[in-house]
Amino acid sequence: MCRWLGYFGDPIRLDELVYNTEHSLLEQSRAARLTTHLMNADGFGVGWYGTSGTPGVYRNVLPAWNDRNLRELCAQIQSPLFLAHVRASTGTPVQQTNCHPFRHGSWIFVHNGFIEGYELLRRELVLAIDPELFAQVEGTTDSEVMFFLALTFGLADEPLTALERMAGFVEATGARHGVEHALQMTIGASDGERLYAVRYASGGVEANSLFVSNDASDVRQLYPENERLGHLSDEARAVVSEPLSDLPGIWREVPSSSALIVQPGADEELPFSPREPS
Amino acid sequence: MCRWLGYFGDPIRLDELVYNTEHSLLEQSRAARLTTHLMNADGFGVGWYGTSGTPGVYRNVLPAWNDRNLRELCAQIQSPLFLAHVRASTGTPVQQTNCHPFRHGSWIFVHNGFIEGYELLRRELVLAIDPELFAQVEGTTDSEVMFFLALTFGLADEPLTALERMAGFVEATGARHGVEHALQMTIGASDGERLYAVRYASGGVEANSLFVSNDASDVRQLYPENERLGHLSDEARAVVSEPLSDLPGIWREVPSSSALIVQPGADEELPFSPREPS
Amino acid sequence: MCRWLGYFGDPIRLDELVYNTEHSLLEQSRAARLTTHLMNADGFGVGWYGTSGTPGVYRNVLPAWNDRNLRELCAQIQSPLFLAHVRASTGTPVQQTNCHPFRHGSWIFVHNGFIEGYELLRRELVLAIDPELFAQVEGTTDSEVMFFLALTFGLADEPLTALERMAGFVEATGARHGVEHALQMTIGASDGERLYAVRYASGGVEANSLFVSNDASDVRQLYPENERLGHLSDEARAVVSEPLSDLPGIWREVPSSSALIVQPGADEELPFSPREPS
Amino acid sequence: MCRWLGYFGDPIRLDELVYNTEHSLLEQSRAARLTTHLMNADGFGVGWYGTSGTPGVYRNVLPAWNDRNLRELCAQIQSPLFLAHVRASTGTPVQQTNCHPFRHGSWIFVHNGFIEGYELLRRELVLAIDPELFAQVEGTTDSEVMFFLALTFGLADEPLTALERMAGFVEATGARHGVEHALQMTIGASDGERLYAVRYASGGVEANSLFVSNDASDVRQLYPENERLGHLSDEARAVVSEPLSDLPGIWREVPSSSALIVQPGADEELPFSPREPS
Repeated sequence: MCRWLGYFGDPIRLDELVYNTEHSLLEQSRAARLTTHLMNADGFGVGWYGTSGTPGVYRNVLPAWNDRNLRELCAQIQSPLFLAHVRASTGTPVQQTNCHPFRHGSWIFVHNGFIEGYELLRRELVLAIDPELFAQVEGTTDSEVMFFLALTFGLADEPLTALERMAGFVEATGARHGVEHALQMTIGASDGERLYAVRYASGGVEANSLFVSNDASDVRQLYPENERLGHLSDEARAVVSEPLSDLPGIWREVPSSSALIVQPGADEELPFSPREPS
Repeated sequence: MCRWLGYFGDPIRLDELVYNTEHSLLEQSRAARLTTHLMNADGFGVGWYGTSGTPGVYRNVLPAWNDRNLRELCAQIQSPLFLAHVRASTGTPVQQTNCHPFRHGSWIFVHNGFIEGYELLRRELVLAIDPELFAQVEGTTDSEVMFFLALTFGLADEPLTALERMAGFVEATGARHGVEHALQMTIGASDGERLYAVRYASGGVEANSLFVSNDASDVRQLYPENERLGHLSDEARAVVSEPLSDLPGIWREVPSSSALIVQPGADEELPFSPREPS
Repeated sequence: MCRWLGYFGDPIRLDELVYNTEHSLLEQSRAARLTTHLMNADGFGVGWYGTSGTPGVYRNVLPAWNDRNLRELCAQIQSPLFLAHVRASTGTPVQQTNCHPFRHGSWIFVHNGFIEGYELLRRELVLAIDPELFAQVEGTTDSEVMFFLALTFGLADEPLTALERMAGFVEATGARHGVEHALQMTIGASDGERLYAVRYASGGVEANSLFVSNDASDVRQLYPENERLGHLSDEARAVVSEPLSDLPGIWREVPSSSALIVQPGADEELPFSPREPS
Repeated sequence: MCRWLGYFGDPIRLDELVYNTEHSLLEQSRAARLTTHLMNADGFGVGWYGTSGTPGVYRNVLPAWNDRNLRELCAQIQSPLFLAHVRASTGTPVQQTNCHPFRHGSWIFVHNGFIEGYELLRRELVLAIDPELFAQVEGTTDSEVMFFLALTFGLADEPLTALERMAGFVEATGARHGVEHALQMTIGASDGERLYAVRYASGGVEANSLFVSNDASDVRQLYPENERLGHLSDEARAVVSEPLSDLPGIWREVPSSSALIVQPGADEELPFSPREPS
């Protein structure tokens, strides 16, 4: 069970969300509240869009709270769109190439969850990755394979459809091997233009939690003296595994089997239904 | 709040105590039971006496459960006398030179606790270290300074007296700077011949927990079918921050303000009273 | 261009060969003499057979000379059969799972060289790995794939034949993709009973250097006052990428396209000819 | 023998100088040309001034060329003033707190060289550090002690005078212990306003090399088609241990026993004479 957060809005310093909130991602990594896992000490990463064309990615295997460089970067870097992730390994090695976000071109990708029976399914899943992309798989996690399958199935052109195909393919592969409920996931992904978030679990199982912040303008009316909220632009949105604060009225749960597109203008919330890749 | 264990007896593989018990040190590092700290993820170390004259020391900054090399070593190395430690930093950097055990010549040393107001006292404590030893201080922890002060005050010749002098000096230095209860500690130390363990806290404060295993022969009578216990020699003794199992009758609490000498023949338990170095 | 050494004989401390020789593996990792690469600073590893059934493996990503734990282990561990390796990456990530030796069951494996056009061939090579073994591939190097292909082709039953099949399969795969000289390699492998060493390069290209020490008894006659040589048992043999000393008469070059079996009784040297797997 | 570079001018991406030049700092770290040391593989660091008040610092113990995060950061971060350093340890541990730059408040500091007989002088030097600053010494290098001595002697108010006092104090301390030529150094330091560079060695010994780039406007006239040079502002200046390119007319050697102040308006070059602290 990992944890992650995504941000879309006017540029803010990364530490505003990664460190400086009541239940920041750093604090969450030390002590779970909504989940049963005790902590996320098996590496972390942050991916952000900046001035250059390609997003930057910083990943490391230490517990996030022990990485001084992470604190430095989060205090220096401003970004209008970023994803941060703290990892709790479900068995694959703790190494940089297994840390999220994964990146390909302008895309970055984080995942919380697992593929049930991954050891059994891994070979078949890996074989389905586009041979052109195959050589770029660097790690050994189910999460990275999910990302490369989504890329294979058209992530760049139809992001949500590609994610539905990936989910459908993983479930079908599971079914062929007798794995009933193959997928447990929340996903965060971005191409630098939009932030995509998905919450889903196979077979109607309760999916890992996912929350999105309400309209900054509404939230400011609730808490007119809150300085941090005063800074946020109206469009600003955070998507998180677990709320970053206990303030009522700020966080809304994203329903299971649904996808969220955070973007300029009105955001969208859509049903998420796995489908077999064509 | 760190955790440690010491073993003295017939040679056993390190993993017998570090990994393969109900509440092994590895498991303890993930989830505290007797203490309030959540975990010990800020590095670890093991020191052992083997065939060569000098004890071996293996230390690393990862959470112990993420270090594959530790598992390899503990599965290969047998030793009649070793100390293992998992660290929860009280503020000093997470780096190899701050991991326990510390070593000097044939001595190794682990500590669970802290010097209250260490930032304030550090300079004066460091200055009291024998200038001949000063250049060998490699880290920045209070624990390493306590070790080098003990060495300065005669650890090699009168181990327990030197530890009492160290404690007395730290308390006196604290008093000069307005720190009332300067010391909170359990200590494990060895010269390869004996295992010394101390439990103490300044001013009658409750000291961190410390336990010692009962006579292996008695324990075997309690659990005649227990294979692991069947292997242990009569002299075998484990000293631990927290019991490695819930079996009743195996562990005895070491009283506060006392010291234990585990050695060939009868062990000794003595009062521990800080004294000013002469 | 990596470097490695293997030892077979009476138990010696690992540091005898890894550290304490004129041109030890550690010194070689800092400054090449026979090769053009400047150094081997991209990780290292050592695998050894000890008292337990499974060989121990210690690997890390630091330059070998900066790893204090390596020095500790090599000073404590004695073994009758071990392989040590210092890595110079040919492009794959510097991570523990890409460090040699690789291990499977009782086998350990090191490699110096590369598969030409590996990015192009990787997918096809990986697909040929026995599906039962596939989930145990943890890294992304050509070397690990070579090991798992050899396991797939029968390493446990017919070691040299399996290595020839692996080489033949890699060359055939290369040929299908227009890679003319696919293999450059020296290999060291062991099952704990024998030490296998191979020197080979595709197409008659000069293979990476490989040397074996002469009979300890002969060598002692050459250098009767040499203490180190005096310690060695008659059967003791070292196989190395580059000689560990400049003493004339100690080292003999292993010819290209040949394999060496170091074992109790007379060693064997055989031609090495890649063959297509049946 | 370490290597470093400093930049002052219009904001540029860090990788322009750290990676993308003929003899970039990265390339220099792999293969020395002007010095006898083979490489700088014992850690690295970069400190930069950005939008926030405090400079950012990123340091790590890997060889610089194996750190993917460094490449990411240098591709994302733009700065008008930064210092980068690759380390070759002269004996102190390879750990993050021993990597340059060192930082205190708005100051960052890098050093190439050593204090002769540091083991002998260390205690006395450390004791001379302002007790208020003492607790902030985190590592064990001579370089960090030099920085804290300069801070103690007034770096914030009279930078060059403070550096002269530091040098004078180190030499006097050396003299008291029979060390004739105590200092070998080039130093780079900044408060975010100016870039200070010093080249000095005790007793007229040849000091480590130091170069500064000529006026960007003059250089552009020499190489009118060079795109990189076309980008640079007229004020832009690089100070380096070794030239980043072989182009004639770009680099000027900084004389021994001299100090350079790179700043808005005309730069200054002054004699550097160690003096006893008052």
